[in-house]
Amino acid sequence: MSTQILPQSPKNVAIAGATGAVGREFISVLEKINYPIKNIKLLSSKRSAGEKMNFAGEEITVEEMNKDSFKGVDIALFSAGSSISKEYAKSVTDSGCILIDNSSAFRMLDDVPLVVPEVNAEDIKNNKGIIANPNCSTIIMLMAVFPLHQKNPVKRIVTSTYQAASGGGWAVMDELMQSTKANIEGKAFVPKELPFDYGFNLFSHNTPIGDNGYNQEEMKMVKETQKILHNNDIAIAATCVRVPVLRAHCISINLEFINSAPSVDEARDLLKEFSGVQIVDDRENNHFPMPIEASGIFDCLVGRIRKDISNPGKGLELFVAGDQLLKGAALNAVQIACYL
Amino acid sequence: MSTQILPQSPKNVAIAGATGAVGREFISVLEKINYPIKNIKLLSSKRSAGEKMNFAGEEITVEEMNKDSFKGVDIALFSAGSSISKEYAKSVTDSGCILIDNSSAFRMLDDVPLVVPEVNAEDIKNNKGIIANPNCSTIIMLMAVFPLHQKNPVKRIVTSTYQAASGGGWAVMDELMQSTKANIEGKAFVPKELPFDYGFNLFSHNTPIGDNGYNQEEMKMVKETQKILHNNDIAIAATCVRVPVLRAHCISINLEFINSAPSVDEARDLLKEFSGVQIVDDRENNHFPMPIEASGIFDCLVGRIRKDISNPGKGLELFVAGDQLLKGAALNAVQIACYL
Repeated sequence: MSTQILPQSPKNVAIAGATGAVGREFISVLEKINYPIKNIKLLSSKRSAGEKMNFAGEEITVEEMNKDSFKGVDIALFSAGSSISKEYAKSVTDSGCILIDNSSAFRMLDDVPLVVPEVNAEDIKNNKGIIANPNCSTIIMLMAVFPLHQKNPVKRIVTSTYQAASGGGWAVMDELMQSTKANIEGKAFVPKELPFDYGFNLFSHNTPIGDNGYNQEEMKMVKETQKILHNNDIAIAATCVRVPVLRAHCISINLEFINSAPSVDEARDLLKEFSGVQIVDDRENNHFPMPIEASGIFDCLVGRIRKDISNPGKGLELFVAGDQLLKGAALNAVQIACYL
Repeated sequence: MSTQILPQSPKNVAIAGATGAVGREFISVLEKINYPIKNIKLLSSKRSAGEKMNFAGEEITVEEMNKDSFKGVDIALFSAGSSISKEYAKSVTDSGCILIDNSSAFRMLDDVPLVVPEVNAEDIKNNKGIIANPNCSTIIMLMAVFPLHQKNPVKRIVTSTYQAASGGGWAVMDELMQSTKANIEGKAFVPKELPFDYGFNLFSHNTPIGDNGYNQEEMKMVKETQKILHNNDIAIAATCVRVPVLRAHCISINLEFINSAPSVDEARDLLKEFSGVQIVDDRENNHFPMPIEASGIFDCLVGRIRKDISNPGKGLELFVAGDQLLKGAALNAVQIACYL
């Protein structure tokens, strides 16, 4: 089970991108864990400014973000896209505020810690004002891999993802609903947010493909995992796929260990003891991690734990489901804030 | 592109399970390829007997199947479940009729060829009255793997599937639609055919799990592939997952070759030349195999062809989409019939 250590003194917090899919979850997570707040600012673009939102029973008006928004703020949680993060980073840090950023803008910079608190919380202390939240698939995969890796180092990961619409925000979640509805009603649908019709369909993650044939999402899983684990030798091959699911990612993971793989019981015990993981591995009832059960909860669900029959001795397979908006984004960022 | 060599003389054909999802595709495939028919019998259980169906512009009344149904029939295409196949096999073969069976009843028997015509058509001649159609995921995976394997032997396959509802027949396809509709309308839904709610969800393939932690669908992919390739040394680790898609399976495939992997261009050329495969591998437009484009067509679509960065030298990754009811079932069976 996931647990958070809360800061001792109340903080001034700003949320950039407060009306977005992740923004709303920042609010819900802060509320759920009773994060001590002195003052909260909800920030957005001009378009959404003026909207009313609730925080802990209080109505708060969303303000248009500007370079002065961060004066007197201790922690800014950003989920407004890479370009907005880049545009405001200096204003945030110049105000003495710590920026916890959910975009990919700063993740691979040497002086920016990239953190999954259960994995590398100790990196937070090296921050120079900015801490990056990893890519959602990277976080969720690591929640299943790290509990095993820290005991018994992993050499190679072969992984295929089943990624939810929420990775693209509200607009993509809505497009999934509209496209599916049109399909059921036998009506034509013209996708706007995505390159292809999403209802009852799936497709390769629509980020640009590099020279090596991998898309950006896949390379994030490789590079970010290596940075978080401080291990450039770990080999990773990822296939990232968008499936018609709303808000929880699933990931099929094939592991090769440097030494012998743990037994299934050992692996299950290591995962069970790990904060933020729940085992869902009921072979008799064919009950394993599923998006509908991972949605809306803090923990990642891990199951299908089995010795890899194609790599006897060194291989192990597993399957994880995690809420893309929570552990894949807002929860992880708030957990980072808890460590400050 | 897929091509069929048709028999020179017209045949008497029976279809067992004619009103089912695969049964209807047997009819559509026979029509589409202009398979020469002398007489066609559409057979079903008592429940569906009496229904009218069309074949090549003629209305045909579905008959209740009995042990005398196969007298004078040359070829019987069966897709009515394992127990029906077992119950009628002797009546079929005693009538001098060849049974092409889509169920798993006879697949692993030594004297029953298990055939993907593009891969091991030569095994058909060893039949003793029964020829088995492989599991849908096995067929579709092999359409992507065999063109490479026959030139450069594959040592190991790590694969994750994205399987459509059609694998469970009409009832499961309908349940996907109903469950999705209920979800959109915010109504509760109680699944009947599947263990879990299917709309906007995915779950591990609901076949029993063996002692090694793999489910039956996964072990079919292992054992059937080894039988079809006449190679028990090829190592396979499969993760089979049902996704909310109607009728085309996708499969993520990681290959390790015994020797050096082919280059991406070599692999693409080998696949392009292979009957039954179309390359959909447009990196610039992020256009790769998708269920909506694989549905209703004979060919399997192969793309995402790239060197495995986690296994430099020996690894290659690819992604395939194939219609579960066509190449995964009815088309493959009719192709076998074409070779008789």
